[in-house]
Amino acid sequence: MAKKEKAVNPHTQVNTRGASMEKIISLCKRRGFVYQGSEIYGGLNGTWDYGPLGVELKRNIQEAWWKHMVGSHANIVGLDAAILMHPTVWKASGHVDNFSDPMVDCKACKQRFRADKIDTSALEQRICPSCNGALTEPRQFNLMFKTHLGPVADSEDNIVYLRPETAQGIFVNFKNVIDTTRQCVPFGIAQIGKAFRNEITTKNFIFRTAEFEQMEMQYFVKPGTDLAALEEWKEKRMHYYHQTLGILPENLRFHQHGKNELAHYAVDAYDIEYQYPFGWEELEGIHDRSDFDLKQHQEFSGKKIHYQDPITNEKYLPYVIETSAGLTRSVLITLMDAYEEEVLAVADDGSVSDQRVVMHFHPNIAPIMMGVFPLMKKEGLDLIAQELTAELREIFTVEYDASGAIGRRYRRMDEIGTPYCITVDHQTKEDNTVTLRFRDSMEQIRLHKDEIIPKIIQFNKAYQRK
Amino acid sequence: MAKKEKAVNPHTQVNTRGASMEKIISLCKRRGFVYQGSEIYGGLNGTWDYGPLGVELKRNIQEAWWKHMVGSHANIVGLDAAILMHPTVWKASGHVDNFSDPMVDCKACKQRFRADKIDTSALEQRICPSCNGALTEPRQFNLMFKTHLGPVADSEDNIVYLRPETAQGIFVNFKNVIDTTRQCVPFGIAQIGKAFRNEITTKNFIFRTAEFEQMEMQYFVKPGTDLAALEEWKEKRMHYYHQTLGILPENLRFHQHGKNELAHYAVDAYDIEYQYPFGWEELEGIHDRSDFDLKQHQEFSGKKIHYQDPITNEKYLPYVIETSAGLTRSVLITLMDAYEEEVLAVADDGSVSDQRVVMHFHPNIAPIMMGVFPLMKKEGLDLIAQELTAELREIFTVEYDASGAIGRRYRRMDEIGTPYCITVDHQTKEDNTVTLRFRDSMEQIRLHKDEIIPKIIQFNKAYQRK
Repeated sequence: MAKKEKAVNPHTQVNTRGASMEKIISLCKRRGFVYQGSEIYGGLNGTWDYGPLGVELKRNIQEAWWKHMVGSHANIVGLDAAILMHPTVWKASGHVDNFSDPMVDCKACKQRFRADKIDTSALEQRICPSCNGALTEPRQFNLMFKTHLGPVADSEDNIVYLRPETAQGIFVNFKNVIDTTRQCVPFGIAQIGKAFRNEITTKNFIFRTAEFEQMEMQYFVKPGTDLAALEEWKEKRMHYYHQTLGILPENLRFHQHGKNELAHYAVDAYDIEYQYPFGWEELEGIHDRSDFDLKQHQEFSGKKIHYQDPITNEKYLPYVIETSAGLTRSVLITLMDAYEEEVLAVADDGSVSDQRVVMHFHPNIAPIMMGVFPLMKKEGLDLIAQELTAELREIFTVEYDASGAIGRRYRRMDEIGTPYCITVDHQTKEDNTVTLRFRDSMEQIRLHKDEIIPKIIQFNKAYQRK
Repeated sequence: MAKKEKAVNPHTQVNTRGASMEKIISLCKRRGFVYQGSEIYGGLNGTWDYGPLGVELKRNIQEAWWKHMVGSHANIVGLDAAILMHPTVWKASGHVDNFSDPMVDCKACKQRFRADKIDTSALEQRICPSCNGALTEPRQFNLMFKTHLGPVADSEDNIVYLRPETAQGIFVNFKNVIDTTRQCVPFGIAQIGKAFRNEITTKNFIFRTAEFEQMEMQYFVKPGTDLAALEEWKEKRMHYYHQTLGILPENLRFHQHGKNELAHYAVDAYDIEYQYPFGWEELEGIHDRSDFDLKQHQEFSGKKIHYQDPITNEKYLPYVIETSAGLTRSVLITLMDAYEEEVLAVADDGSVSDQRVVMHFHPNIAPIMMGVFPLMKKEGLDLIAQELTAELREIFTVEYDASGAIGRRYRRMDEIGTPYCITVDHQTKEDNTVTLRFRDSMEQIRLHKDEIIPKIIQFNKAYQRK
């Protein structure tokens, strides 16, 4: 056996702010961000369910992306294509032939292994590394999930695939969008949706999962202007992570694909990478896909799908700049990036005497915008706080909490990343003022309750993580 | 052959406002609401793609539902469970054994037929009604889509199903939600997501499709209080269709399930039905599911998932009131319901000399909130209108349109249901006022451009369809 070096366990490795995958997963489970899929049945590998806080975080990220892409660009429109698509789509895209890994099956224990990942001698002798049973010859195992559609007995004829990416839904609708909107090149089509890959190794929590969500935008440009558009979108997308999601710049970088990494259709390609506890890995791809996809669909469908310039009457197939972000990964990085174990007090002997876990979510995406607390449950303070909660829920996500000491309530809100806490106390009964406490600085100010909404909107716009 | 009565064609049947399925489908395709799925490849049966306007309409309906359910109820939380679930979930729920139709396959042409829908003599003689080939014995054909998950050769052991309903994702997470939130019975869990059914007959546009979306809320109550909760939710849900979506009350009704219709688990069940062009059919189910699902999952998983009352310490399995709305159907009914061919002028001979197609979407869900037009493209009016567009896009979905006569631009906006149109004209340059034109009444008012945002918010709140 080859001697192995003792590796750092990426699961428990801690970054400078105390975050590790282990701690994030534990927090997610404990506070209702993310549960293992089908957990009461022992779980289903590669699937995760989003709990009450996770679903709000995910919805906020979706909304922020949609607003950033569709809402603020007059030349970007939305789309929502079906997960089940005509099988020829995946012939045209190359997925049927090429989206696969070389695999061997064990005839005895039925386990499947990547041929390029098992021991060479086991592979040569065709012996199962798990049970020593006989292995099949290596063959290509396609990562697309197959199913059968329609009122015909299951056969090769009615196979359909769960889409392995959302992009093709955009390409096959390119002509529809051109024909039914007034968009002219350059313009983009944006889509959020699920995709499925039968990954042999799902791993690192929600980093690589069988079922995941993408937020993709395909930007159609005149050939020759594509590299300039690639630069433009690289800048816009990085700005989005910094400003809209509030991700720490030191955890983001570009990675340009080398010659050996470039997909066959790509002219040039960059990834935005995030510094996960297990290393720098992809978060979003910003790729110049040339006219490869439109050309393929034109050929395989036999339909003309070129663009005609309304002024010059020139006909061409546009080039495509793709910005392909993982929504599932965006949830992961916002969780990772927000986490901090903050030391609040140190004893004389230098040991930590008080600390808190705080999630520094940008207010754009925080699952709960504010907590509202009565200082105590009696003397009518609870009723005032409940009324205020109902009023604020018209605009924000608000959690009412009346149990335990105020300090404990603050800490519970810190741990789920609630930017603001409002406390109703005796003075509220006299002058309608409340205290507003900031999550990051823990500072408090006093303000009239009618000022809460405009002030919060103002604070959110000005928010900068320190 | 049995003689058939000539039936009304539900596809072309027109209601009192001129709407028919045919006209809606045509409008949807022409203006980019809904396209046939995989259209350039000849379409994939039972799938539809939502275009730029359709996706905005769908997102607005989702948002309105979420706000109505989760946003405005402190005791309802959200969830987003995976589409792929452990196969035992569907054993427990009864879907593996019972979610099926009796089918026969033709051994020659491979077509599949519902045994209870083909000619009795063909069935008795086992002759294919299409090609006269030999039919198999009838057998149960399960409507769930099957696929295989994970690194094991495809076999019975690694079958997973695409969920045929979102509800079970809520039930299997009941204990997780109880353990990670401070919710006490009665409380609800709400979820929006895709579900898949291999329907033998997909039909009526997006009414019955293989891939569809549900908006479900399961409300957990103490047994004995379930029938009162059922009444409460019937009322709330009907109110939502009237007030939030602005659906015409005459097109909605309750239908109580008779003894023969009731599912085996149901104590009592109502459907909210909509008057489609093809008749009254289900839009939403409001069902008292008893403790059937939780009991089944407790038994099949072997895990204790009861609720313990924090005050009395009483332990029990809650009863469940389900409100199960179709998002896909909600899109259909908002389209159907909004459509009107309105006569604007009649000639002396009584013939219609001017009419418009107008979609009376409630502003809560209209895909585009306002159009902004320069009266003409010159004299700087276009620049002022573009600046105004950019400013208003911070808050609303806005379409800028500078082409054609103003009257034509209004009609284009009417046809996609845009509630407001704003025109920048010469006077705008003098006093910063614009005209605001209302879609339904076609009335116009003049106002300062700084008044647009607050006025629109005020009009939207007060909106009542006439």
